[in-house]
Amino acid sequence: MKNIVIHKDDRVKFRNNMNYCVGTGRMGLALQKEYAEQLKLVQEKIGFSHIRGHGLFSDDMSIYHEYQDAEGRTQVEYNFTYLDMVMDMYKELNIKPFLELGFMPGELASGTQTIFYWKGNTTPPKDEERWCNLVKATLIHLMERYGTDEVVSWPVEVWNEPNLPGFWEKADMKKYFRLFEITFNTIKALDSRFKVGGPAICGVDDERWIREFLVFCRSKKLDIDFVTRHHYTTEFPENAGHYGYQKLSEPQLGFDNLKTTRDIVDEFREYRGKEIHITEYNTSYIPNNPIHDTNLNAAYIAHQLSRLGDVNESYSYWTFGDIFEEQGVPYTPFHGGFGMVANGCIPKPTFWSFYFYKRLKGECVYRSDDAIVTYDEKGTYHGIIWNPVYGEREGKLELSFVLDADKEKTYCMLQQIVDEETCNPLKIWHSLGEPSSLAVEQKELLRDAARPLIKAENLPVDEDGVHLNFDIGENGVTYFELRPVTVSSDRGYSYERAYEC
Amino acid sequence: MKNIVIHKDDRVKFRNNMNYCVGTGRMGLALQKEYAEQLKLVQEKIGFSHIRGHGLFSDDMSIYHEYQDAEGRTQVEYNFTYLDMVMDMYKELNIKPFLELGFMPGELASGTQTIFYWKGNTTPPKDEERWCNLVKATLIHLMERYGTDEVVSWPVEVWNEPNLPGFWEKADMKKYFRLFEITFNTIKALDSRFKVGGPAICGVDDERWIREFLVFCRSKKLDIDFVTRHHYTTEFPENAGHYGYQKLSEPQLGFDNLKTTRDIVDEFREYRGKEIHITEYNTSYIPNNPIHDTNLNAAYIAHQLSRLGDVNESYSYWTFGDIFEEQGVPYTPFHGGFGMVANGCIPKPTFWSFYFYKRLKGECVYRSDDAIVTYDEKGTYHGIIWNPVYGEREGKLELSFVLDADKEKTYCMLQQIVDEETCNPLKIWHSLGEPSSLAVEQKELLRDAARPLIKAENLPVDEDGVHLNFDIGENGVTYFELRPVTVSSDRGYSYERAYEC
Amino acid sequence: MKNIVIHKDDRVKFRNNMNYCVGTGRMGLALQKEYAEQLKLVQEKIGFSHIRGHGLFSDDMSIYHEYQDAEGRTQVEYNFTYLDMVMDMYKELNIKPFLELGFMPGELASGTQTIFYWKGNTTPPKDEERWCNLVKATLIHLMERYGTDEVVSWPVEVWNEPNLPGFWEKADMKKYFRLFEITFNTIKALDSRFKVGGPAICGVDDERWIREFLVFCRSKKLDIDFVTRHHYTTEFPENAGHYGYQKLSEPQLGFDNLKTTRDIVDEFREYRGKEIHITEYNTSYIPNNPIHDTNLNAAYIAHQLSRLGDVNESYSYWTFGDIFEEQGVPYTPFHGGFGMVANGCIPKPTFWSFYFYKRLKGECVYRSDDAIVTYDEKGTYHGIIWNPVYGEREGKLELSFVLDADKEKTYCMLQQIVDEETCNPLKIWHSLGEPSSLAVEQKELLRDAARPLIKAENLPVDEDGVHLNFDIGENGVTYFELRPVTVSSDRGYSYERAYEC
Amino acid sequence: MKNIVIHKDDRVKFRNNMNYCVGTGRMGLALQKEYAEQLKLVQEKIGFSHIRGHGLFSDDMSIYHEYQDAEGRTQVEYNFTYLDMVMDMYKELNIKPFLELGFMPGELASGTQTIFYWKGNTTPPKDEERWCNLVKATLIHLMERYGTDEVVSWPVEVWNEPNLPGFWEKADMKKYFRLFEITFNTIKALDSRFKVGGPAICGVDDERWIREFLVFCRSKKLDIDFVTRHHYTTEFPENAGHYGYQKLSEPQLGFDNLKTTRDIVDEFREYRGKEIHITEYNTSYIPNNPIHDTNLNAAYIAHQLSRLGDVNESYSYWTFGDIFEEQGVPYTPFHGGFGMVANGCIPKPTFWSFYFYKRLKGECVYRSDDAIVTYDEKGTYHGIIWNPVYGEREGKLELSFVLDADKEKTYCMLQQIVDEETCNPLKIWHSLGEPSSLAVEQKELLRDAARPLIKAENLPVDEDGVHLNFDIGENGVTYFELRPVTVSSDRGYSYERAYEC
Repeated sequence: MKNIVIHKDDRVKFRNNMNYCVGTGRMGLALQKEYAEQLKLVQEKIGFSHIRGHGLFSDDMSIYHEYQDAEGRTQVEYNFTYLDMVMDMYKELNIKPFLELGFMPGELASGTQTIFYWKGNTTPPKDEERWCNLVKATLIHLMERYGTDEVVSWPVEVWNEPNLPGFWEKADMKKYFRLFEITFNTIKALDSRFKVGGPAICGVDDERWIREFLVFCRSKKLDIDFVTRHHYTTEFPENAGHYGYQKLSEPQLGFDNLKTTRDIVDEFREYRGKEIHITEYNTSYIPNNPIHDTNLNAAYIAHQLSRLGDVNESYSYWTFGDIFEEQGVPYTPFHGGFGMVANGCIPKPTFWSFYFYKRLKGECVYRSDDAIVTYDEKGTYHGIIWNPVYGEREGKLELSFVLDADKEKTYCMLQQIVDEETCNPLKIWHSLGEPSSLAVEQKELLRDAARPLIKAENLPVDEDGVHLNFDIGENGVTYFELRPVTVSSDRGYSYERAYEC
Repeated sequence: MKNIVIHKDDRVKFRNNMNYCVGTGRMGLALQKEYAEQLKLVQEKIGFSHIRGHGLFSDDMSIYHEYQDAEGRTQVEYNFTYLDMVMDMYKELNIKPFLELGFMPGELASGTQTIFYWKGNTTPPKDEERWCNLVKATLIHLMERYGTDEVVSWPVEVWNEPNLPGFWEKADMKKYFRLFEITFNTIKALDSRFKVGGPAICGVDDERWIREFLVFCRSKKLDIDFVTRHHYTTEFPENAGHYGYQKLSEPQLGFDNLKTTRDIVDEFREYRGKEIHITEYNTSYIPNNPIHDTNLNAAYIAHQLSRLGDVNESYSYWTFGDIFEEQGVPYTPFHGGFGMVANGCIPKPTFWSFYFYKRLKGECVYRSDDAIVTYDEKGTYHGIIWNPVYGEREGKLELSFVLDADKEKTYCMLQQIVDEETCNPLKIWHSLGEPSSLAVEQKELLRDAARPLIKAENLPVDEDGVHLNFDIGENGVTYFELRPVTVSSDRGYSYERAYEC
Repeated sequence: MKNIVIHKDDRVKFRNNMNYCVGTGRMGLALQKEYAEQLKLVQEKIGFSHIRGHGLFSDDMSIYHEYQDAEGRTQVEYNFTYLDMVMDMYKELNIKPFLELGFMPGELASGTQTIFYWKGNTTPPKDEERWCNLVKATLIHLMERYGTDEVVSWPVEVWNEPNLPGFWEKADMKKYFRLFEITFNTIKALDSRFKVGGPAICGVDDERWIREFLVFCRSKKLDIDFVTRHHYTTEFPENAGHYGYQKLSEPQLGFDNLKTTRDIVDEFREYRGKEIHITEYNTSYIPNNPIHDTNLNAAYIAHQLSRLGDVNESYSYWTFGDIFEEQGVPYTPFHGGFGMVANGCIPKPTFWSFYFYKRLKGECVYRSDDAIVTYDEKGTYHGIIWNPVYGEREGKLELSFVLDADKEKTYCMLQQIVDEETCNPLKIWHSLGEPSSLAVEQKELLRDAARPLIKAENLPVDEDGVHLNFDIGENGVTYFELRPVTVSSDRGYSYERAYEC
Repeated sequence: MKNIVIHKDDRVKFRNNMNYCVGTGRMGLALQKEYAEQLKLVQEKIGFSHIRGHGLFSDDMSIYHEYQDAEGRTQVEYNFTYLDMVMDMYKELNIKPFLELGFMPGELASGTQTIFYWKGNTTPPKDEERWCNLVKATLIHLMERYGTDEVVSWPVEVWNEPNLPGFWEKADMKKYFRLFEITFNTIKALDSRFKVGGPAICGVDDERWIREFLVFCRSKKLDIDFVTRHHYTTEFPENAGHYGYQKLSEPQLGFDNLKTTRDIVDEFREYRGKEIHITEYNTSYIPNNPIHDTNLNAAYIAHQLSRLGDVNESYSYWTFGDIFEEQGVPYTPFHGGFGMVANGCIPKPTFWSFYFYKRLKGECVYRSDDAIVTYDEKGTYHGIIWNPVYGEREGKLELSFVLDADKEKTYCMLQQIVDEETCNPLKIWHSLGEPSSLAVEQKELLRDAARPLIKAENLPVDEDGVHLNFDIGENGVTYFELRPVTVSSDRGYSYERAYEC
């Protein structure tokens, strides 16, 4: 039994930027109704500031077009019809894009290599000037529609995971750096207030890429605004049918890896202290690993959220919802997609980990591998406790806190509990026979079942403060709040007498 | 430990008409926004067919007016502006009125006696013809607006609780019978398809009233369509400040009392078998007894719902929501009002008792003082278990069922649990210090906390069938469903492997 | 034919504060659903900042209560349940109260005199201290709920029309001044940032009241924040049945009267330049004059809106909607109520006068008794023209403008036309036989018919600029916009060829 | 001046089935939010029973998949995730599919030929059995999800326009007949209640196709349920940039052509009198002809709607909305798309032609090339008049009716006018400079401007009846209603006195 004493004046390192950015399926999918409904739910309950995904320039967005004029010369025209629809919807939902420039429009591509079910072209431009014009025209259009001051506040990242040959032909580093250079210069020439960064790599050969990228930028005198990378914490998958299964890594390995990136950046005098944005993270990096739908995922991510701000400016959970087609259209509502929300607008347990972090207010007074606690200016403690059970770990987690408190006051202890017993839509769906098509009533049932259990009670204060005892279920995440309350019983009202029948 | 064996072909007496009718605060309150929102919630989740309350003819509905014409003669005119607003809203929410004719418009009253904070006039009409014209004009107006066939399907009850002197001056039986007679004849003359009944009495001197009423009707050859009475199951209140506290009665006393009414009616050859409608029931009959907000109330009412259909056609819970002003405007959201829904659109535990009974499908295969079970044509069992703890009763309730089942099938056991731990908004509000004004976030918290805990699992079948074990918390109400499911796992999907990390 | 030349650099006096405040039926009615729907429509299309009406302390709000404690002493308690509901709704609709303190709670009143169908008590408090405590408790409650900084920004006016004996017993000036004094001091003691004013008089004996009020304030050293009065522009009514009919006054009489008030205030050194708020205005001051529903009213009010800002800080149209009960519940949807919106959420012509003034942007470049024109920084002219036909006036109004314009540009002329032919729901209702109960389809038809006719065309520019010719129908109000546009035809698109079939 | 006398007992041929079916962009687009919003608008205001479009089996619906099993054998699996989303949305909007079976899933295709920007594969199946299994599996899935009785009421058409080589490889008649045969037999074997038909041809070589199709069906003893064809009424386009321009045909040519089809079908004893469904019609058959957005289109279609029921069971306007990608994503909101609704949810004039026909009630008493009039059992006349100006036609249309009426009654004449002056969003957009991206306010302005002008007046009755005079603007469509009304003025109310100021 752990027994932890916390004082309100304790100060512990913790940077909570969990709602700066969230990932999404490709931009073309943002036209869908179900996509918008899932994002609306996420924004109402959590509220992210930015959203990042692939496919801005892919063919289903239909932005870039070439045609022959009367004289037979090739001309270029742009179509922003769908881009406007997507951006209008984002604006309505109070979320800004974190622009990822890519992939290559078919008509501008130098090759035919594509990635994913939806065939994003991943080859360099056949014409650098036209690429730069495309970037410029798109940004100018957005500035005209949404206002210059607004649009320059949208971060811009060049391409995605060029260190993988699937995402960038042959993972050709030199060609990526060239793309970055011309893009960076185009944007800064348009308006120097834009924040532009890269190289958006994942964890393959990452140290070399980061270092070479910065060497290149320095050589070209590119005053980049931030460095980006991804962060996944599972091993290689074993595949079976439509699915893949992976082991989770020990979190510390990942934190160490992130620290290495930080250190590399800081080695460069020109870039020391530059912001690092993790523009994608999750447990598994495949959209068909059932872990994403589990309480285990929620508990593992709760831990991540307590640490990812340590050396990074932001970290973008990949992804907010399950409208996502990289491996094709999913066959069932619970198919191990990346989303916090399953199709049918059903929040997964991980959704609540974010919801809970959103509620952490004030200064951090305690942080461990199991829990985090903050204290705000109204005298309220907020805490989150998690208990992911995987690898060697097992069983329940018992924790006991003693929180510094004022003996003159009445305290209300509020808990929101997400664990395998209280908020486990996956298990309910499984028990129903894993239906691929949900009836309307089943959707409603699953949504109703996908909510934390909420409890409250008044706790006494003794000399040491208030004693809290937690018994966290397997893969549970519990949020708690201990707040001083004013008791203002109405004339003649007695809660106890209500039961004296 | 009780151990109960249930076969799907068992047949047990049970009539489930819980959603035929529900009570409401006076009609003038139906203009309010919060009223409409609470009723919308009730209709979406439960769905009642009819709604009944007081005040159709009271002054705030502004229907009846007298004026002097140019010749100085008194003329009458009607104003249906507010009536239309209320009825349109009811129609939109898919609920029909169970019309209660009363109270007396001030300008038509013979006296000045009023009842309640909102001053309903409870004296006989000063002019019988004008009363009959008022009734007729109102019904004709409704028939023109909503269609004759529709309006004749709305039951009509004459006045409310004339056996109490507060509700009917001096509880003058003779004058009530006269009012009934002229009203009945007026309506039947308008359209004989109307169903008309009375005497709408509560449990004071009730046997005499029922008997005299029927004697009177027989003497006047009034072929009444139904008999109405009320049913409350608490003793006299002790008052303190704004509140009253009462002991609950043993349910059997109430059931016996209802049976007596049935027997009296059946004594009359002319009225034998006539429908009896309980046009009001609840635990306490005062709108300021905190019991209404408790889990105890939910459990007690769950028991009532298993029995009230035995000798009655319908029974109307008094009331659906807490927009209600008989004792004045409530000071706090949880003030012991009659409603299933507290102000702020917060469902009280009792709301779920109704929600659960709505889900009972098929034939009754088991009924006791603790539980009821039905079995439907799709092979699903539905059950409700309750555990009200009051008087001498105490503690948890353990129950064990063995349900007849098919060994070839997979069964999903689904539970929805409402008890003091899982769904107790009153306790949360109490823990927050009993705030009289709820902040927006507090309302949201209380709504989120006011939901059943939902669980599901697959249960094995052995020779005896499926074994269910319940451990019902104090004042708990649990709904369960045992249904055969088709397992249709997607290619490669494994629920178990999701956790093998 | 008038021919008017306008230059973009012309500057003409005009203060457009038409959406600072709007009037409302008594606060208790703000609980109603239809009220909220009408206000929502008004806020979406026009958007007022403040709302002012009677009845904050009247009995249906149920705020003030006295009771005897155990020792038999009288105690006071407050109930803010309904006040919260109203204020929450206002906040949701983005409108702040302009608080009018009144009328007297029955239990705090010194007499029994009431006003209106809804019986507002209009007598002085029986106990000054309790009145002050009531004011203070209410403001403190609001500050706790909505934030101190927010609530101190809500203007406070003491009572309503004390110069009429119906609104203030015997129109007792001395007692009103005493009420003002103690109320003013109570509020300023609570938070000196509150803005407090009076005497909220109408145009009866008004000059004497204003002058005496200021003499009194000066004598008591009350540093009042503003002076308030009302402004109606019709003569005495002739009554017939439920209705009253009145002649409209010549507008100049009213403007002169307002100027007199301004002059009186400015005579006082201590109050020179103090803001004057017209806390009520309309054509007729009775809620049953059919003029309120006409196009004539819209045109007359359009004129008023061009002038009311001249010597006043604000002017509050009485009222936004027709949920209003001073003379009882209206018998029909078009009953000559004050509202811009008829019951059934049907905008009246006057609604659009406000909608049009909302669209006036930039600096005023022209103002006459028929029209007003502004010019904004984007190079767009906005104008409103009106043509009320009453008294000696008659027929159509022809107007011709020449607007300074850039020959290099293309101009789009946009018109929105409200007149007896294009937007006259009253006439349609009349033609339908003046139904008192609107069927759902009739409501929809009337709403559809209650919209301006919208037209646009491109106009040529010559040496003088752009020539606009208007032919305004009887009682018409036309809004126009002349804006330079960028022509960006898509490749191959021809509007003209679309019709070459 | 035409002068037309109409008696209420006249009976004229007219079959009004305008809302049986409507066309749509490919099914994959039905996932989009804007698509659903446009369809919602159409359903609320018009209300179609069925919807038909291409692409059920195209790759973006992702239904058909092949994979290799562990033994290396090819297996088939189906994915109904997106189909469910679309069908659920249709159900929510109260519209049923008119199923068109096609195009070919890539993995089931025998060739690589595709049509349209969105690449629908238009080759025969590589394996007939798998095609039949796909059809069967899809229908079975729908029956399980939506109920057998419901789904068998959805008509089924096999493929689209096989008489064009673009839609069916080489327009190979024999292969189409084979496809029809196996599909027909598969469906009828599943449930003989299904209604199945073809050949869904357009007007190219149509007589031969119809005849050969029926010969084939007869030879195979296929008891088809209906015959389908398309109907467009423009000549070949001249292209310019993204657009095409065409001349309208004289309507009679089209009506004659439809009659020929009817005659051919009736030549076959086995198929005499079989229903013919026009599963597509419009003026132009290209989705980029600006005519679709004009008032001319509305007037031309109003004429068509008066005649298309003459020899056909139904006729499906191609299409309800402008979410449509056959030629790519449109560059601007008004791009000459097929829809009744432009992107941004802006109704085009043609929308109102349908809205007006929806309002025709009762029996037809008059029909000409300019107008149609019906008379219903409530004594109301409903009429539509149109005035398309194209080719040699020109100018305004004057029409005068004398309608049989009751001298004792009061009549209300209601008009809804759509013409180039009153309801012409295209002109407003054009005047604004033809912006490709609409600002939020511009969308609102265009929606507000895209509504009929509504007028009403009371008309006198003389010996001949009621005289109506119409002056229909160029390309105008006017709906009128002449209804007897009950005048029920409230006590003291005078419409006329309202203006006597």
